Amino acid sequence: MDSRTVGILGGGQLGRMLVEAANRLNITTAILDAENSPATQINSVGPHVSGSFKDAVSIAKFAEKCDVLTVEIEHVNADILQDLLDQKKVKEIHPSPATIKLIQDKYTQKLHYLKHKLPTPAVLDVPNATQESVAAVGQKFGYPFVLKARTNAYDGRGNYVVKTAEDIPEALKALKDTPLYAEKFARFDRELAVMVIRTKDGQTISYPAVETVQENNVCHTVYAPARLSDSIQQQARNVAENAVKTLDGAGIYGVEMFLMNGDNEETNSDLILLNEIAPRPHNSGHYTQDGCAVSQFDAHIRAVLGLPIPPLTMSTPSTYTIMLNILGAKEANGELEVCKRALEVPGCTIHLYGKTTRPGRKMGHINITAGSMREAEAKLAAISGATSKNTIEQTIPKEVAIAGTSSTPTVGIIMGSDSDLPVMSAACKVLTEFNVPYEVKIVSAHRTPSRMYSYAINGVNRGLRVIIAGAGGAAHLPGMVAALTPLPVIGVPVKGSTLDGVDSLHSIVQMPRGVPVATVAINNAMNAGLLAVRILATGSETKDAVLLAKLEKYIQNMENEVLAKTEKLETIGYEKYLEEKKN
Amino acid sequence: MDSRTVGILGGGQLGRMLVEAANRLNITTAILDAENSPATQINSVGPHVSGSFKDAVSIAKFAEKCDVLTVEIEHVNADILQDLLDQKKVKEIHPSPATIKLIQDKYTQKLHYLKHKLPTPAVLDVPNATQESVAAVGQKFGYPFVLKARTNAYDGRGNYVVKTAEDIPEALKALKDTPLYAEKFARFDRELAVMVIRTKDGQTISYPAVETVQENNVCHTVYAPARLSDSIQQQARNVAENAVKTLDGAGIYGVEMFLMNGDNEETNSDLILLNEIAPRPHNSGHYTQDGCAVSQFDAHIRAVLGLPIPPLTMSTPSTYTIMLNILGAKEANGELEVCKRALEVPGCTIHLYGKTTRPGRKMGHINITAGSMREAEAKLAAISGATSKNTIEQTIPKEVAIAGTSSTPTVGIIMGSDSDLPVMSAACKVLTEFNVPYEVKIVSAHRTPSRMYSYAINGVNRGLRVIIAGAGGAAHLPGMVAALTPLPVIGVPVKGSTLDGVDSLHSIVQMPRGVPVATVAINNAMNAGLLAVRILATGSETKDAVLLAKLEKYIQNMENEVLAKTEKLETIGYEKYLEEKKN
Repeated sequence: MDSRTVGILGGGQLGRMLVEAANRLNITTAILDAENSPATQINSVGPHVSGSFKDAVSIAKFAEKCDVLTVEIEHVNADILQDLLDQKKVKEIHPSPATIKLIQDKYTQKLHYLKHKLPTPAVLDVPNATQESVAAVGQKFGYPFVLKARTNAYDGRGNYVVKTAEDIPEALKALKDTPLYAEKFARFDRELAVMVIRTKDGQTISYPAVETVQENNVCHTVYAPARLSDSIQQQARNVAENAVKTLDGAGIYGVEMFLMNGDNEETNSDLILLNEIAPRPHNSGHYTQDGCAVSQFDAHIRAVLGLPIPPLTMSTPSTYTIMLNILGAKEANGELEVCKRALEVPGCTIHLYGKTTRPGRKMGHINITAGSMREAEAKLAAISGATSKNTIEQTIPKEVAIAGTSSTPTVGIIMGSDSDLPVMSAACKVLTEFNVPYEVKIVSAHRTPSRMYSYAINGVNRGLRVIIAGAGGAAHLPGMVAALTPLPVIGVPVKGSTLDGVDSLHSIVQMPRGVPVATVAINNAMNAGLLAVRILATGSETKDAVLLAKLEKYIQNMENEVLAKTEKLETIGYEKYLEEKKN
Repeated sequence: MDSRTVGILGGGQLGRMLVEAANRLNITTAILDAENSPATQINSVGPHVSGSFKDAVSIAKFAEKCDVLTVEIEHVNADILQDLLDQKKVKEIHPSPATIKLIQDKYTQKLHYLKHKLPTPAVLDVPNATQESVAAVGQKFGYPFVLKARTNAYDGRGNYVVKTAEDIPEALKALKDTPLYAEKFARFDRELAVMVIRTKDGQTISYPAVETVQENNVCHTVYAPARLSDSIQQQARNVAENAVKTLDGAGIYGVEMFLMNGDNEETNSDLILLNEIAPRPHNSGHYTQDGCAVSQFDAHIRAVLGLPIPPLTMSTPSTYTIMLNILGAKEANGELEVCKRALEVPGCTIHLYGKTTRPGRKMGHINITAGSMREAEAKLAAISGATSKNTIEQTIPKEVAIAGTSSTPTVGIIMGSDSDLPVMSAACKVLTEFNVPYEVKIVSAHRTPSRMYSYAINGVNRGLRVIIAGAGGAAHLPGMVAALTPLPVIGVPVKGSTLDGVDSLHSIVQMPRGVPVATVAINNAMNAGLLAVRILATGSETKDAVLLAKLEKYIQNMENEVLAKTEKLETIGYEKYLEEKKN
């Protein structure tokens, strides 16, 4: 797609995955790192240089061979990068050396955000960290607050939460020999992250906000998209994009944020606090490899070369991905156990980094894709060894549902009495005809109230999407079920021995404001079945196309029947027609 | 995941994508092919051998360095592979050399299927192809029939459709110097393909059946899953799995099939005809890279090593993928134009093979992923240059729908007269509250019958999922709309100046069998809105989680209100309660 060589400072797993994405686009990459790095293992053509990305000589030698430089780690020698740019020894560096330098020092990074009025916790410099100077922070910020190393901190290393003044000596010991600053403690509810692309002309494009879960200060799982309302999701993306707009240079940025405890999601403007930004691909963006059509690595390569980037959405509107990090186990290669379990679970893609096993080292990750977060979580439980294989098989929906009376029904048909069955069976017949899995049960509102209650309450979780309830007389079943479930409930008034069913019609249709029952005509369970099919057909994409087509055909057949009848009527006249109909 | 080295005979694009998949699993691969092949470009660690996969010496040398051998092309030297196996110079070869040899000769391949009673067109050997011997085939099979080269045929080369006896000289000229056989012409409707994994213990696991579209005898696009009913989909997978069960050796097999014209899908047992099988990854399986969590390449590597393989489904139940082949254009690199357009369209993943451009050469492919086939087709049209960028933006649903009265509504609210608006506005209010995009229009069944007709007919295509129709008096609107659309229609009986609305209630609810209208209480448009929300919430995964949660909360609030009221009632007594209520 482009004949330029992209030079990447650093050949760890992020570099490796950048190379993988570039390979797919026929774009040449080169790596500056120690020999046989994870990235060079999968690139036998790039003009690699063996050396350190902190070493000025190696970087200068590397720059000669590349058209564009970028980084997979921010702890590079930013000064020599700036020199190379100033001396025009390299055409472009993304992100800019100034951005890299700014971000290397967490304190200057935070001051930068505060200067740009971005929502972020207050900070204080602690140039000479002593018991007294740190205690002064406690007096100003209150306890707890966070004491942080300004530089070379990652994965929670270099952070210390000071809960009381008594913690100070321990904090100073843990963070000795490094410049420090203090940060106000953010009482957050969850941690969020948004990957943002900055294009060469300063536009930003963000991926969906995700939830990150840390264990021992290291990223453990990422839930994509985050389980948030649309407005909070948008707010998180806005904060992330606004922050990245203040930084210079193209490429991907990983923006970490806190979701604060707020009583009112809509009105609290500081619901999202910016934590920090990584000016490179980020662990919280690994889900994009399998959850999105364009991965963070693909998008980064495009951005540094100025190639087009589309809106960065999940692959489909119902794609949910959980990313699980694989950390080196205590015993060598012990971490492969979880990978081996993942080989057996549908929807799991394993990414290993070609690194030598070492306890706690990031060895790889697994992206778990599913059509709902609940299903993704069930798969995560299975590969984590939390559930048996049997459980997962029960939890994951079968690919093809069984037609007819089913153990995994989509429609529940219930009635107050078995005397309703002759009428209600018309609904069963329609659902069988359309191959919709259903169940049929006797559930009486008046005689089995507990059963009715639990049936209605559990409907959603059991996978029901529509409930058809038939009842005669006072006919409380449809309305009571509707009052207990958010599913659409279709009511069938069953004709009793008196009043011709008008009683059940009124009882079912004339519901109070707030609790609708989709009422069909008296004894017309067939229409209830058809209405259920219409509701299913308009819903998820899996079955619809087939169901919609069948419905269209059904409607067409009915029309054809009438057209045939009227043609006959108009040909032979009404008297002969009536006569033939009699025989 | 495994310390064995997998040797691949052939380093073209299929080999390259096998290496890519193996890299992700930390599995070492080695390539036997010319230097700088597409596969070796992305593997700098494997013990590659430069040489031909048809050359016995090279193969023997290669086998020494590998634990397991496999192929990315069937035109290898199968005899030397069999020798190596017999002499125990290599532990395992997948698929077996016997399978490779069988498949290399299309005639023996077909005889094999016929022997195993698999549904496939009849064949005749034509050992000495002359005008007379070929004309004899025409007499036996009838015209048209297909004259085919037994060996070294691919991408339609080596096939000649003989329409009449007069075509025979031309056919013999086109297929000269090669052993021939004849095949009965299959009058197929569409071409299908199923990728099947055979495990070492002879189990088969199939991917969904896909539709393949050829242009000039070369695969152009693949639609995954195929637009088939569940039963035909299953039938295709059964035929494919049964066929692969008769072949020896583990790995992926690409099974090409014909879907025959059949009037009755359910009863015609020969609806699916087996065409031929490739004992390796196949062009029709490229969609699995982005449409499924486990790609055909990943599955093949696992199979030849005996690692576990889960059910091979699409990533989510609503994942649809179209694969578009990128063939070398007449002018060098001209094929990159379509790739560049794909960079701008959401849901497209580009896979280029690192090959030098040449007209007609397979240079790469693009996988287009979407939440529906219609959306995937719109994207395909955009990257093919068939539509302008504006059109595609109109076609692809916006990620976040606009709340309130919307230009991309999900719910249509219509009423017979503006005098109904005071009542119907309650539905608008509910939909606004739940952030559901809707539109509101006046559509009279009696006074604008054409408008009513086209509104109802176009509802599905415009993206509506529910229609709410309010009417008073004779109230024909909801029922007429329901008669014209397969969408669920909710009817609101509007109270007129006489009869208290019982007329409209009966007119709307007492529909004839076959055309249901979900009727709510008289004047209760609020419940119509809520019922629409319930229907949407139970449908696709995008909005439901949020809507379901909102509905649950809504129901809980109503309950809490009543509970608060009854608590008050029970505390202060009914008289005081009524008294307070008056004020």
